[in-house]
Amino acid sequence: MPIETPHLDLVEWPRDLRGLSVRELKRLADELRAETIDAVSHTGGHLGAGIGVVELTVALHYLFDTPEDILIWDVGHQCYPHKILTGRRPRIRTLRQGGGLSGFTKRSESEYDPFGAAHASTSISSALGFAVSRDLQGRKNRVVAVIGDGALTGGMAYEGLNNAGSMDTRLIVVLNDNEMSIAPPVGAMSGYLSRLISSKRYRSIRDLARHAAERFPRVVEHGVKRAEKYARGLVTGGTLFEELGFYYVGPVDGHNLDHLLPILRNVRDDAAAGPILVHVCTQKGKGYAPAEESADRYHGVSSFDVDTGAQKAAGSNAPSFTKVFARSLVAEARLDDRICAITAAMPSGTGVDLFERVFPDRAFDVGLAEQHAVTFAAGLAADGMKPFVAIYSTFLQRAYDQIVHDVAIQNLPVRFAVDRAGLVGADGQTHAGAYDVAYLGCLPGMVLMAAADECELVHMVRTAVAIDDRPCAFRYPRGAGFGVTVPERGEILEIGKGRILREGATVAIVSYGARLQEALSAAEELAGRGISTTVADARFAKPLDGELVRALAREHELLITIEEGAVGGFGAQVLHFLAKGGILDGGLKVRPLVLPDRFLDHDKPDLQYEAAGLRSTHIRDAALAALGRAEELDPDPDS
Amino acid sequence: MPIETPHLDLVEWPRDLRGLSVRELKRLADELRAETIDAVSHTGGHLGAGIGVVELTVALHYLFDTPEDILIWDVGHQCYPHKILTGRRPRIRTLRQGGGLSGFTKRSESEYDPFGAAHASTSISSALGFAVSRDLQGRKNRVVAVIGDGALTGGMAYEGLNNAGSMDTRLIVVLNDNEMSIAPPVGAMSGYLSRLISSKRYRSIRDLARHAAERFPRVVEHGVKRAEKYARGLVTGGTLFEELGFYYVGPVDGHNLDHLLPILRNVRDDAAAGPILVHVCTQKGKGYAPAEESADRYHGVSSFDVDTGAQKAAGSNAPSFTKVFARSLVAEARLDDRICAITAAMPSGTGVDLFERVFPDRAFDVGLAEQHAVTFAAGLAADGMKPFVAIYSTFLQRAYDQIVHDVAIQNLPVRFAVDRAGLVGADGQTHAGAYDVAYLGCLPGMVLMAAADECELVHMVRTAVAIDDRPCAFRYPRGAGFGVTVPERGEILEIGKGRILREGATVAIVSYGARLQEALSAAEELAGRGISTTVADARFAKPLDGELVRALAREHELLITIEEGAVGGFGAQVLHFLAKGGILDGGLKVRPLVLPDRFLDHDKPDLQYEAAGLRSTHIRDAALAALGRAEELDPDPDS
Repeated sequence: MPIETPHLDLVEWPRDLRGLSVRELKRLADELRAETIDAVSHTGGHLGAGIGVVELTVALHYLFDTPEDILIWDVGHQCYPHKILTGRRPRIRTLRQGGGLSGFTKRSESEYDPFGAAHASTSISSALGFAVSRDLQGRKNRVVAVIGDGALTGGMAYEGLNNAGSMDTRLIVVLNDNEMSIAPPVGAMSGYLSRLISSKRYRSIRDLARHAAERFPRVVEHGVKRAEKYARGLVTGGTLFEELGFYYVGPVDGHNLDHLLPILRNVRDDAAAGPILVHVCTQKGKGYAPAEESADRYHGVSSFDVDTGAQKAAGSNAPSFTKVFARSLVAEARLDDRICAITAAMPSGTGVDLFERVFPDRAFDVGLAEQHAVTFAAGLAADGMKPFVAIYSTFLQRAYDQIVHDVAIQNLPVRFAVDRAGLVGADGQTHAGAYDVAYLGCLPGMVLMAAADECELVHMVRTAVAIDDRPCAFRYPRGAGFGVTVPERGEILEIGKGRILREGATVAIVSYGARLQEALSAAEELAGRGISTTVADARFAKPLDGELVRALAREHELLITIEEGAVGGFGAQVLHFLAKGGILDGGLKVRPLVLPDRFLDHDKPDLQYEAAGLRSTHIRDAALAALGRAEELDPDPDS
Repeated sequence: MPIETPHLDLVEWPRDLRGLSVRELKRLADELRAETIDAVSHTGGHLGAGIGVVELTVALHYLFDTPEDILIWDVGHQCYPHKILTGRRPRIRTLRQGGGLSGFTKRSESEYDPFGAAHASTSISSALGFAVSRDLQGRKNRVVAVIGDGALTGGMAYEGLNNAGSMDTRLIVVLNDNEMSIAPPVGAMSGYLSRLISSKRYRSIRDLARHAAERFPRVVEHGVKRAEKYARGLVTGGTLFEELGFYYVGPVDGHNLDHLLPILRNVRDDAAAGPILVHVCTQKGKGYAPAEESADRYHGVSSFDVDTGAQKAAGSNAPSFTKVFARSLVAEARLDDRICAITAAMPSGTGVDLFERVFPDRAFDVGLAEQHAVTFAAGLAADGMKPFVAIYSTFLQRAYDQIVHDVAIQNLPVRFAVDRAGLVGADGQTHAGAYDVAYLGCLPGMVLMAAADECELVHMVRTAVAIDDRPCAFRYPRGAGFGVTVPERGEILEIGKGRILREGATVAIVSYGARLQEALSAAEELAGRGISTTVADARFAKPLDGELVRALAREHELLITIEEGAVGGFGAQVLHFLAKGGILDGGLKVRPLVLPDRFLDHDKPDLQYEAAGLRSTHIRDAALAALGRAEELDPDPDS
């Protein structure tokens, strides 16, 4: 049954909002919430964050002159209502689908997305760039960043606050405080914000002065101005944000347009120099009972039934790689009390929540703080513990220098569980785990592994426990495993040794990671055409199994490498080894298959790999072409 | 004339300190300062930071049971007095020399260096790891991190504070506040600390309560306890550090052992759970007049005359690459008012200080905050400016995710001036600019350039100005240029096109960056042996000059690539191109010369490249070996 949205139906762009009354805006907000819920019930995606900022979204577009005024959403996963109001409602049910709207803000999608995101804590920095650029160009537009309390735990947000707070440029930061990022909040900042809210119930500059007067009655005899100064500005008073140079306004109820509109209007029209922080309190999942009642406020959902909130089950019966990792680590930790698990605000995404249930003292959620997570783990390792840092490939980029400087150079046995390796589906470009093999492979001393399937992952978890004299990383993909049998406990793999799964004579396919099944399928197809094919699983990109690679090179006409990663990774390690050793001198054909040199849009993972040219048919076709049998190439690339 | 150090002569290890009187400790501190100055006058290195923490170093080793108690120095460049007191005095005049002591803390050097450093802002995170590990293992040792106010501007330090502040583990953070990192302080935190010092003159817990009583006389009628609560704890009172969960003590004069010792003893013996922050004020360069009077407090110096403070001139007359970059950028900025320059707390190291003198409004020192620097620049670029982010290769690692997520994916024209590319000499392993070509080369859309000499750098600055539709990076080495003639203004290079410097028939050497002179020397030597050699300067690693590489491959028996970087960089791009295009199929010999797969110790850059196997002799020998003329290899590798 289609939902009724008479007010929303009249709003295609933000300018259509600006003539409405507050009463009409409230109705519009209700309809916008219903539309968002309905859209996500079809597409799946991030729900709780978006419906928590419906009123804020309406208020910002109503009061500010977007897109001339710059509005930047941190992370961007709360932007569905924003997309609906900015010309994208007709496509809103294509969210996160192949060819459809992105699940995040994206510059190429709309001029109302002046700066895209998907990773957290970037909005203050980018907004400051827009503000300074405006000043240099002599323009007058406003710049607004909306950042959640979760994203505020990232050090980058603090770097942005620290820099903005010492400048005179006009910048508005809206702190969207829902006391929740993805998981329940962690860290001292979260406690601070809670105290701030419970101690400061005022909602405007006037109220603030009155509140200060209540708090310091005797001081107030000297006048409200002085009281305000005590309550706000100085070292011994004021909020942390004022100490960092921001004018602080808040907290204000982010679901009440009667409160939100006048305050944001004041902030908008404030002509004083310097940055302002507006502390807005919202409820994640607001206005949708199943979300409000859920522990994670429907942070990320699959498609669901709007009436009941019941989410559609995932398609596969096989446990996810994440779960297999977590269970294996729990099993190992039962036998070794030095094993710890660290997550950067992603306990359920990484499986560290399962570890925490069994070993609460040895599980650490450090907040959205990958840099700290890695060096904290390095400290643990330096003192004799066995830390496993579970971070998605894409987020591990945040801690690259810490991996180099604190872990690799010191040769400390930190174990990196690199989840979401390779293409990740609906989250798209910004979440692709494409670069870790390249950015880790260039570091001396790293042991790099990739799991071909969930059984291999179990071996690699145990192997990582055993590698106690240097750092190691093992990568594994997003989503369900292949359904292979998983052993109770893994074996300790020999470091730097691959394995051969199928022996042939002409073509050798060396797979690193979860393309192994595609390699085996390709071998089968090639066999059907009379081309005898070997398939090996390298297991290690570093140290490389040189003996295996050398033998395969010697015994075959063609060597194909395949990996779920960009150029510079496994294939580069193989080519470097072959070239350096003179193994190419005699004329070996080598074809490295890697992710293409472009950012791939969101889509189903299989279709992404199809677009990337990394399916069995592509392996087969690469082999045929290299062997001079290009005429056999299938004209239909999808067959 | 040798300095007299009768007290210091009796102290080899910290335990030798612990029986001394305070009076003796003071004399020892004076001698330790003199010894440090004398040592650095011979070796060069970081002077101001070390002599600013002489008393603090003495106090910490006197009061704490190092190495059982863990003492971690942030950055580590202030550790020379610490090294002198921890068994390394006999080698202190080998600091930063080949085979000598490292200029930073280093685990492999001493058990008194439990966690090494060189990059900033890591100490709180690593110390928290040690503290949590101690708790898990049921030990009782103390853990102390010493962090400067400069390092506190890095977001990672905040991440560490935020995490530690929410935990019950005992951790001592000493904030060494000298109002200075390398450059004068920037950012709001710096202003906050100054206000904190000027408003809080107490020096102990008792004083703190008394101070609070002065501030809130009427409130104090209800008792000192209440006053202390107001002054310290709550949201509207207290310091930022208390708001983040730390017990704050300070500020205390870091050069006065009569103040420092009792407070640090109290802190040491405090049995309460949770973290403590001791705010210690010191003066960088303290006790050495030339340093105290210098603008940068002798942050980093060459060898110098102790009496006059006069530093020895650098050996070369050629301007440094850094200066050539800065001058070129200034010249371009005179013609284009959209050009901006951004540095992360390294204005003089990067040459941004020269830019700032001419264009103060377009120069930005954002503090020790590389993540913010890059995304701030991305915001500038998104709004139409032309930002140049000047960051050393090694520190750019700090901003890797921002390069991926905020710059590359959005295809924004941020220009990265990657200084200190390749091996950097005395700063050693932690500062090697070894990985940037690998970690940037895997990113779609990046334009990567490397300057073969200072003339090329001028071209690349102008080319980077012209590249306004996508990101680019150009790398150049530390130190003096080759003395080649530098044009008034550079030319705009054709993107993705290299150049041939010498034409031959048998061997082709393709250089990327500043090894070009070595390649030309090698060609000369090979010519002397009758081997006709082509030398090309690739200029671009991405997009690669495929036409050039293909032609060289077709026309030569052997192709050698050489770069000042690790595996996965330029050579990997060349090999990938050759393999993918089937150009290797016919049996081309390829030898990629890259940095070896180990961390190279500090030494003179030439000797480091000798150890790395990247000098002309190595190129020559690689060619001879590949051509089957290994019998001609020189038995003396240094000749």
